[in-house]
Amino acid sequence: MKHTLKSSELDNQNEHHFFLKAKKLNIRTGDVFVILVNQNDAERLGIMPGDELKLDWNDTGIELYVDVSSDLVNEGEFGLFIDIFEKYDIKEGKLVRLSFAKRASSLKAIYKKLYGGTLNFNEIYQIIKDIVDRRLNNLEIAFFIAPSFNEKNLDLDEMYYTTKSIAMLGDTFDFGEIVADKHSTGGLPGNRVTPIIIPIVSSFGVCIPKTSSRSITSPAGTSDAVESIMKVDFTAEQIREIVKKNNACLVWGGALKLAPADDIIINITRSLGIEPYSKMIISVMAKKVAMGIRYLIIDIPVAKGAKIADIKQAKKIEKLFLFLAKKFNIKTEVAISKSFGPIGRGIGPALEMRDVLRVLQQKENRPLDLENKAVKLAGQLLEMTKVVKRGRGEEMARVNLKNGLAFQKMTNIMKSQNGNENIDSEDIKIGEYFYEFKATNNGIVKSINNASIVELCSLLGTPKLKGSGVYLNKNVSEKYQKGDTLFTLYSESEQRLNLAKEALEKMKEIYR
Amino acid sequence: MKHTLKSSELDNQNEHHFFLKAKKLNIRTGDVFVILVNQNDAERLGIMPGDELKLDWNDTGIELYVDVSSDLVNEGEFGLFIDIFEKYDIKEGKLVRLSFAKRASSLKAIYKKLYGGTLNFNEIYQIIKDIVDRRLNNLEIAFFIAPSFNEKNLDLDEMYYTTKSIAMLGDTFDFGEIVADKHSTGGLPGNRVTPIIIPIVSSFGVCIPKTSSRSITSPAGTSDAVESIMKVDFTAEQIREIVKKNNACLVWGGALKLAPADDIIINITRSLGIEPYSKMIISVMAKKVAMGIRYLIIDIPVAKGAKIADIKQAKKIEKLFLFLAKKFNIKTEVAISKSFGPIGRGIGPALEMRDVLRVLQQKENRPLDLENKAVKLAGQLLEMTKVVKRGRGEEMARVNLKNGLAFQKMTNIMKSQNGNENIDSEDIKIGEYFYEFKATNNGIVKSINNASIVELCSLLGTPKLKGSGVYLNKNVSEKYQKGDTLFTLYSESEQRLNLAKEALEKMKEIYR
Repeated sequence: MKHTLKSSELDNQNEHHFFLKAKKLNIRTGDVFVILVNQNDAERLGIMPGDELKLDWNDTGIELYVDVSSDLVNEGEFGLFIDIFEKYDIKEGKLVRLSFAKRASSLKAIYKKLYGGTLNFNEIYQIIKDIVDRRLNNLEIAFFIAPSFNEKNLDLDEMYYTTKSIAMLGDTFDFGEIVADKHSTGGLPGNRVTPIIIPIVSSFGVCIPKTSSRSITSPAGTSDAVESIMKVDFTAEQIREIVKKNNACLVWGGALKLAPADDIIINITRSLGIEPYSKMIISVMAKKVAMGIRYLIIDIPVAKGAKIADIKQAKKIEKLFLFLAKKFNIKTEVAISKSFGPIGRGIGPALEMRDVLRVLQQKENRPLDLENKAVKLAGQLLEMTKVVKRGRGEEMARVNLKNGLAFQKMTNIMKSQNGNENIDSEDIKIGEYFYEFKATNNGIVKSINNASIVELCSLLGTPKLKGSGVYLNKNVSEKYQKGDTLFTLYSESEQRLNLAKEALEKMKEIYR
Repeated sequence: MKHTLKSSELDNQNEHHFFLKAKKLNIRTGDVFVILVNQNDAERLGIMPGDELKLDWNDTGIELYVDVSSDLVNEGEFGLFIDIFEKYDIKEGKLVRLSFAKRASSLKAIYKKLYGGTLNFNEIYQIIKDIVDRRLNNLEIAFFIAPSFNEKNLDLDEMYYTTKSIAMLGDTFDFGEIVADKHSTGGLPGNRVTPIIIPIVSSFGVCIPKTSSRSITSPAGTSDAVESIMKVDFTAEQIREIVKKNNACLVWGGALKLAPADDIIINITRSLGIEPYSKMIISVMAKKVAMGIRYLIIDIPVAKGAKIADIKQAKKIEKLFLFLAKKFNIKTEVAISKSFGPIGRGIGPALEMRDVLRVLQQKENRPLDLENKAVKLAGQLLEMTKVVKRGRGEEMARVNLKNGLAFQKMTNIMKSQNGNENIDSEDIKIGEYFYEFKATNNGIVKSINNASIVELCSLLGTPKLKGSGVYLNKNVSEKYQKGDTLFTLYSESEQRLNLAKEALEKMKEIYR
């Protein structure tokens, strides 16, 4: 009684679809994939709220959750929110083919992982493909990510397969043989060394096509910061042009379809507020593989309240980075550094970028801790690529910072990326609402609680409100007197400034 | 420099709110907690899409995700979908207090669990409370549930704490000393013994206030099935009345705020399509504790493709049930039974209920396998409560089925629960679209693939479309000849019938 496939009946399978007319609903929802169906159509077609429908448009299958309405869409119409219209370039009034979505086949692999199993390459590739194709919804992806938080579930082969799948399922680049990059594991407030390192390194002729992400749990990612003075959102073709001209770029990776699965996963861990460190390492390395990087320096800042809190954990992460780097043949060095507070004074997109320009423009008020760290990492990378001799990297990097060649390079990048090339560090726009926190005694700053600074920034509206954030008028090792401003809260929204002030009252020991 | 709380500034914390007017948006979304804010208000107040706002109404704090629109709501207004309006009895045009939602404090415990830690009672109680209070969103809850799929993460104390918290955070009942209940772990198609057992047991004067859930992964829960002939949705007060009158009820637990956390969690695992078995046990026992049950029989059906596939797993589950039962002092017996296909002939809400009435009305065409199983379990429960002597339960149960006392009891329950007390089994409405699957040879049914039956039912629209489902014209051990109908697909929707037929073509060996 084996039930075989009859070809005559297979031909009929194209019949289980129907056509409705697209209607734009003037609501912006962010990342919510919902389709609105008229009540009568729903009854006629047997569609229920919560069902998933597949919409076919321009050779793309988009899966959407059904909402039912009796008046926002007429019979024969379906409604979509603006975001989806724009994202897929759907035309209002057009007849569109819809069908019932089938369950993603990779769900079986997700079950296996949840039950404690280990996945092979094919299973992982299918999951990542279904994430990219939007065949898995956010809840299903959350169930896939969840087991990776627990170190006991870590499997090196799974990490390699995931990295490879993420890199394969997106845009890839080839800029030649000597292509360098720098990455920071992040989580340390401030620490905006990247936009200093890129112009220094590229001023020596080394190709360094930097793509960054937006922030996950921190007040700003490199892209959020850079975006406060120039555009970061370019197509693959435009980036090839920018890099050809400058040997460098400072762009957002997300617009690129570089590791697109990773961007979807980041949105989910972001809403949770934490991410597993294996996921972070996979995310970084997948992007390096896709960008064709051959030389890589990884900055692992270690600090209390930062993403990586102790040297032991940093060493574990270093090992995993080097494992993947070897698998993909990327020459990689890891620099672990410990600090007792943020690097630089500004925390938040615009405040950080002001620090960066102060360094590149060699202003009196530039943060020296930030400058020194950037010079050190740039020097190490120059040595790795053999453009300068071992032992002389830092010295040479500093030369090009002092003589203005690095800033000249930054000016060229700004020009190529639609920025104002004549901008001065002090022109950068900071939020108009602010609150100065004063010292109640005399002392010296021993350490600054990074977690509190991050929480304040989040309440102040970073990274979305670019002018929001915290400025450290006094940083670690600096003396202060009673009445001195220790730090300043800035926000573009009065409401959010008040929210942060309220939270501030409940925080203990931000400065020690 | 310890930062202490100043009471004068604490008083100001009530200022970080604002008022907007409620507007009803004629969209039904199911369980989507979204608030629509006007673009200009959003900019003025520093609100961004994806933020969470807290809405205060009738002493309830409701947390909602922000969507921003420039035309669906005017300045000074906010929009909510119909579902939320109805659920919280919100009045259109009223000024409502809104504020920024703060992150749920129990997220820290969820992190701890994700990292592999073990939670104490306070941590678990806070998570369950935040689930009930809607302070944790579906993604956050998914991350909380995910680790419990892996048996290695199972901790008995955590199970006990979770059960206790879920039971405490909802309605509770006290029907006296001799209060019995029957529960099936489910997952076996058909097997609708509950609406047969309840009238039998209560016809002996034993109180058996049955609350059931709707289905998770199966074609129908007891409530879905019972609802095809009577109302199941009652308030706590109404249930007390029904039980007072009949010693019994057959109601849906969800309307009751009985273990409300569990209903929220079920929605999440439902969308995934599987649930951890520890969660299932917790869910069952929390409801028994809340209902004040003292005697309990648990039916664990074991079958290929059913929820519990082998005896070894059934034994593990039995152990966990008995562990919790002992903690809560509920006298419990577990009956494990193995089968090679569904119990009864109908699968799907209405089709199952027709089988139940055929048994209670002792029709010629009643399914004897279903009758025999129900009689056996009812007898065992009667023995446990000492209403009949050990060894004579099954015999006595059959007496009250044959003499019509059990059906008389069912008639009374239907009367109390707004059903048609004169209904005949053959009056139950089945979906109008159907397809008969014919045998291509002669043979005897050795087994039926439960998983395929479940998948077909889901495609046919169960449990939402009550008349949809599969009817087994030939069940296990029955002979058939070429051309005989082996089973029939029914649906209320032609679209879905076609979808199921398409899937059927790809299925192998539904019957063996």
